[in-house]
Amino acid sequence: MPIVNCKIGKNVKIFHPKLVNLYNCQIGEGTQIGPFVEIQSDVIIGKNCKISSHSFICSGVRIGDGTFVGHSVVFINDRYPKAVDAKGKIKKQWLMENTIIGKKVSIGSSVTIMCGVKIGNNCTIGAGSLVVKNLNNNKIFYNKIFSKLK
Amino acid sequence: MPIVNCKIGKNVKIFHPKLVNLYNCQIGEGTQIGPFVEIQSDVIIGKNCKISSHSFICSGVRIGDGTFVGHSVVFINDRYPKAVDAKGKIKKQWLMENTIIGKKVSIGSSVTIMCGVKIGNNCTIGAGSLVVKNLNNNKIFYNKIFSKLK
Amino acid sequence: MPIVNCKIGKNVKIFHPKLVNLYNCQIGEGTQIGPFVEIQSDVIIGKNCKISSHSFICSGVRIGDGTFVGHSVVFINDRYPKAVDAKGKIKKQWLMENTIIGKKVSIGSSVTIMCGVKIGNNCTIGAGSLVVKNLNNNKIFYNKIFSKLK
Repeated sequence: MPIVNCKIGKNVKIFHPKLVNLYNCQIGEGTQIGPFVEIQSDVIIGKNCKISSHSFICSGVRIGDGTFVGHSVVFINDRYPKAVDAKGKIKKQWLMENTIIGKKVSIGSSVTIMCGVKIGNNCTIGAGSLVVKNLNNNKIFYNKIFSKLK
Repeated sequence: MPIVNCKIGKNVKIFHPKLVNLYNCQIGEGTQIGPFVEIQSDVIIGKNCKISSHSFICSGVRIGDGTFVGHSVVFINDRYPKAVDAKGKIKKQWLMENTIIGKKVSIGSSVTIMCGVKIGNNCTIGAGSLVVKNLNNNKIFYNKIFSKLK
Repeated sequence: MPIVNCKIGKNVKIFHPKLVNLYNCQIGEGTQIGPFVEIQSDVIIGKNCKISSHSFICSGVRIGDGTFVGHSVVFINDRYPKAVDAKGKIKKQWLMENTIIGKKVSIGSSVTIMCGVKIGNNCTIGAGSLVVKNLNNNKIFYNKIFSKLK
């Protein structure tokens, strides 16, 4: 079962324990985790959160109590990721920037959040957005769409 | 095997039954379903559809015959998702808006479709688009891209 | 185990062999592959690459040595995908356009790459981008974001 060395609170629901990859992370009481989710080392997720299917939460992320993470949400911890170093050898270290998500935040599905960002309490991030800047408490943020129709 | 209580038509192909999460849904004859797909309660998928890997089809979605759903396509059913109610308790109910996809539609990969939308027959939705409005039959829709190159 | 008929080089790391779907593909020496990844027939991936979780690499894609593929990256091989032919029968063939990724490229998370594209060596593609054109060596490419804040 790919749930290794996690500190899991009371009443946490992991709907399909064989279809997630969680390691060395902390999941608060009452939080719910869908299938096809990866949560990496040192992530701290608060109480009563919902982490929806297909989401990826990397090392360096902290999520406050009561926050909703939609489906296919992707966090980032290295702004300039590389597979190899200058000599062509596979990299084992990377530059990590932390991402802090407040309480009762709502992160829509298919959102990507750049590293180094702080999202305040009660913020709402619209589906499909790319977030690259901090948001103060209670902000609503979404990408403006330009579309073509034939 | 995470396929529970589904009504599955003849000649449906689920390529990796251990790598999907399907429950209480209906899959029409001849439809094909890739790995890492979740299909939730009450979804109805027509005949001869292709549901590609990493897609998420939530309660409230109906998909017509002969429709193609690309990879990492995400549907939505709650416009304002929240993990918790005003008292901080985890929410068990949500406001659901239905999404109706016509016949022989082509939904490109990485598309996100907002809830409450109706997509007509034979529509084509370009890869990476966010769809928030209805489309009449035979429309081609895609997000306009603005890009920077250094 | 859904790893079938693959040519896998020395020191390749597939962190969760039960949570990937790899078939008829070639993975170069030292490359690392995360969970929830699908790699299809005839794909060739070079040495010392990192293929991150939730990525989809379809037939027709070739990836050079030392390239980083972020999380939830999606490749495409058919520009006009359809589930069924004119008679409504499920399609078994499709029009494939190849995609060639150079060496030491960095593809950010949630990137979607249209088929038929060539990406030169050492290119960097920003997270969340949709790439539809070729990139010469050493280019940095990203989608410009327009966002609204309330």
